[in-house]
Amino acid sequence: MRTARPPGPGLERLSLNQITAERASFPQAVEACARHGVPYIAVWRHKLAETGLDRAVRLVRDAGVRVSSVCRGGMFPATTRAAREGRIEDNRRAVDEAAALGAPVLVLVCGAALPPDKDIAAARRMVADGISELAPYAAERGVRLGIEPMHPAFAAERSCITTLSEARCLAERFDPTSVGLVADVYHIWWDPALYEELARAAGRLVGFHVSDWLVPGGDVLMNRGMMGDGVIELRRIRGAVERAGYGEGPIEVEIFNEAVWSTPLDTLLPLIKERYLACV
Amino acid sequence: MRTARPPGPGLERLSLNQITAERASFPQAVEACARHGVPYIAVWRHKLAETGLDRAVRLVRDAGVRVSSVCRGGMFPATTRAAREGRIEDNRRAVDEAAALGAPVLVLVCGAALPPDKDIAAARRMVADGISELAPYAAERGVRLGIEPMHPAFAAERSCITTLSEARCLAERFDPTSVGLVADVYHIWWDPALYEELARAAGRLVGFHVSDWLVPGGDVLMNRGMMGDGVIELRRIRGAVERAGYGEGPIEVEIFNEAVWSTPLDTLLPLIKERYLACV
Repeated sequence: MRTARPPGPGLERLSLNQITAERASFPQAVEACARHGVPYIAVWRHKLAETGLDRAVRLVRDAGVRVSSVCRGGMFPATTRAAREGRIEDNRRAVDEAAALGAPVLVLVCGAALPPDKDIAAARRMVADGISELAPYAAERGVRLGIEPMHPAFAAERSCITTLSEARCLAERFDPTSVGLVADVYHIWWDPALYEELARAAGRLVGFHVSDWLVPGGDVLMNRGMMGDGVIELRRIRGAVERAGYGEGPIEVEIFNEAVWSTPLDTLLPLIKERYLACV
Repeated sequence: MRTARPPGPGLERLSLNQITAERASFPQAVEACARHGVPYIAVWRHKLAETGLDRAVRLVRDAGVRVSSVCRGGMFPATTRAAREGRIEDNRRAVDEAAALGAPVLVLVCGAALPPDKDIAAARRMVADGISELAPYAAERGVRLGIEPMHPAFAAERSCITTLSEARCLAERFDPTSVGLVADVYHIWWDPALYEELARAAGRLVGFHVSDWLVPGGDVLMNRGMMGDGVIELRRIRGAVERAGYGEGPIEVEIFNEAVWSTPLDTLLPLIKERYLACV
């Protein structure tokens, strides 16, 4: 039974990244997308673990909501070989989940610089090695790996891959049908080479995430804002992303913010749609 | 009366950036440097305003403590022409203060992206224009302007100039005797082009600031740590800075951190010396 309301004009690419509805269960988030005409959802693995993969697959299929991506694979650096192999194995499970959900992309948050030996160059090599191991497995299952360069404020804890330039150079070691880039405005808006780098990423972009950078800032993880509430030139960046060949794929709204998380979905989703149309 | 205790071996370049002693008055910080054999202090303008320039000049001279830099000039972008001219005028006063204190460098925190129109490119042009106006005035007074690229997390509120690459391209528009670069490990450690860019900055470096990046992170302004407590490869970065020609100038310890600020100076300064010798 497909219950999804069709998306309104201009909303055909809209995806609710599930972290934006962190307080909602998987069934609640999917049902809200269907009811509010949000055609895509991006699935987080901790939500998937709560729900179970088979049930999750049924829920999105029955609701008629498509899965834009699975968040997140990656986290390749670790201090021992055994730990690194464990991370690869976990990434294979993430690929399996993406394939089962019909998600074309597994988003890679590549992993942190390693505090014990402080060797960020070594962490970067572990990321490259990890993607090399994972890419053939993902390609066989029809899932593209999307390297998401993250804001430099997350370099020590989430991703030693920080800039579009660095992510592109890494992605270019692989076939573009298997490894691409995810552009998230929150992570890249400040980059003095932003527009040149988006142009250079042509043909490699497999995802586009929107939110906003609030002023004044605070905790860099939780300070993302609703589109239009901050300083990011969303329209201009979207234009550059489209010129780089990502003109039809889903656009995910991904917001880590307690106030957003505390907003009921029936208030939040109309606001997301309104701001998406007005600002993105 | 010069009261300064001579710096111990290896401490000849050490400078206490005054923000690290934010709870101390100007006289207290200068006196503590002299007593603990810290040969330099970097002066913040809000401390100078509390103390008065003439008295501050006497205090550092009488104590035999040299001023490594004045923090901070910059903040060039503003929404109106009158406001931008006011910023330039304020920067001229900062140059005057640096000259009076015998500080060879005025550190530039260039200024924020402008929230109202979200046009970071325009903010960057205002920075370049501001430095163009200020540079001749500073050169006449023997004060070099030191562009400090700041961590991208500060792009919206403190500096739209974020990377060493961007700061260098900006500095290269000017004579190296009048405009240089300040390398602060907290702002640049994550940069995938860090070592290439430090090499390219050869002859332009006019300051080197140390602290550490703590894990877990939090508020990006106040989460700086004592050298050795975080993930930054301080020794390796210092080596690259020295190979780029900054081998004798002062090295400032600049730490925004409530715990550091709450530590009495007679505990803090010995700790700074110990960690500087062990980690930097």
